[in-house]
Amino acid sequence: MHFGRHISGQFNAELESIRTHVLTMGGLVEQQLSFAMQALHKDDTELARKVVRDDHKVNAMEVSIDEACTRIIAKRQPTAKDLRLVMAIIKTITDLERIGDVATRIAYVAIEQPSTKHQKFHVSLEPLCRQAIAMLHQVLDAFARMDVDAAAEVYKLDDKLDAEYEAVIRQLMTYMMEDPKNIPNILQVMWSARAIERVGDRCQNICEYIIYFVKGKDVRHLDEKAINDIL
Amino acid sequence: MHFGRHISGQFNAELESIRTHVLTMGGLVEQQLSFAMQALHKDDTELARKVVRDDHKVNAMEVSIDEACTRIIAKRQPTAKDLRLVMAIIKTITDLERIGDVATRIAYVAIEQPSTKHQKFHVSLEPLCRQAIAMLHQVLDAFARMDVDAAAEVYKLDDKLDAEYEAVIRQLMTYMMEDPKNIPNILQVMWSARAIERVGDRCQNICEYIIYFVKGKDVRHLDEKAINDIL
Repeated sequence: MHFGRHISGQFNAELESIRTHVLTMGGLVEQQLSFAMQALHKDDTELARKVVRDDHKVNAMEVSIDEACTRIIAKRQPTAKDLRLVMAIIKTITDLERIGDVATRIAYVAIEQPSTKHQKFHVSLEPLCRQAIAMLHQVLDAFARMDVDAAAEVYKLDDKLDAEYEAVIRQLMTYMMEDPKNIPNILQVMWSARAIERVGDRCQNICEYIIYFVKGKDVRHLDEKAINDIL
Repeated sequence: MHFGRHISGQFNAELESIRTHVLTMGGLVEQQLSFAMQALHKDDTELARKVVRDDHKVNAMEVSIDEACTRIIAKRQPTAKDLRLVMAIIKTITDLERIGDVATRIAYVAIEQPSTKHQKFHVSLEPLCRQAIAMLHQVLDAFARMDVDAAAEVYKLDDKLDAEYEAVIRQLMTYMMEDPKNIPNILQVMWSARAIERVGDRCQNICEYIIYFVKGKDVRHLDEKAINDIL
């Protein structure tokens, strides 16, 4: 993959190495989210504990990639497209780390509500979680290829995730009204649903950084039409 | 205020200008949060609409400060403490922008639940909101002086905010159980409470960036003891 033009092959290798680390981090976060969902679905507290235990790996990757980015700025003084890549990476890893936190949150629900009596609440999260994982997978794929068209496709998926989220919340509200003594448990599931819905927003953020890197335009806070005009 | 040593007075002026913009942005965000709280408390939908309308100003400041930071990296090639300042600013404005979103969320509750019958739910948010605003005010003050001791003090305030948040949620849960048909309205207030609780986390993030700038150590994901050892 060719970034901006620069003479140093070493510099290129450094940028490539950081990019690879971001993808490794993304893969780990995707796995954490997927394990957390499985743990909730299969009532597997052991797997849930593993997710909680492994969160520090995600955090450590964020810190080390951030350091590598700062070092490359200080040492290589990147400009133009190289600098945009570093900036896009610095922002992307913040969102990835927060998605990692969502996995931990879901894992805690699996640990704290292990009994099968809550299964019907848990089940409602699965399609939502599955969609969020698919969205994350696709945005990481777009990031790997720095493909704006793929990023634009992922961006649109958030509407579907939002619709699914609204349906889950409505369903959980019905459970609350039917059985008010379950409100505290159902609230925990609702917080998780909301956290998963936010994964979609974070994936959209990463789409924006991909567009920023490739097109050199900051499209945050623009509406979909304005973004499409830039693409 | 003296940052790293460098010959260019112009460079110093540029850094100072960016820092001033961050403080202006912080002041605007604090005002937004304060107006949103007033709007909710006094059932003032006009003020709430102003908060929603003004959110774009916060967003525009984020984008323009980010651009200024990228420009200064490309043009001035900062290293050491200067670079840490730029990095700290890039991260700080992301958190400030998200706190701005919290203000908008509260404003929407004020717009969508204008009738006085929900006042008792709204009222429960006020002490929480007041604490969050105080925490934001103090962290901006610590940022203005790049004062690690002040940052460490603000950091600790989050425990109090979390305790207040738990109390609010418990109270709102009681309302839900008493009157299940009000569950949808109360949920809106709960989402707001949660968003306000997150303001505390974001203020803690900013404390971490201040420590990073002054001490040169990334203290994210460390526990309080480890952070105290660095201070």
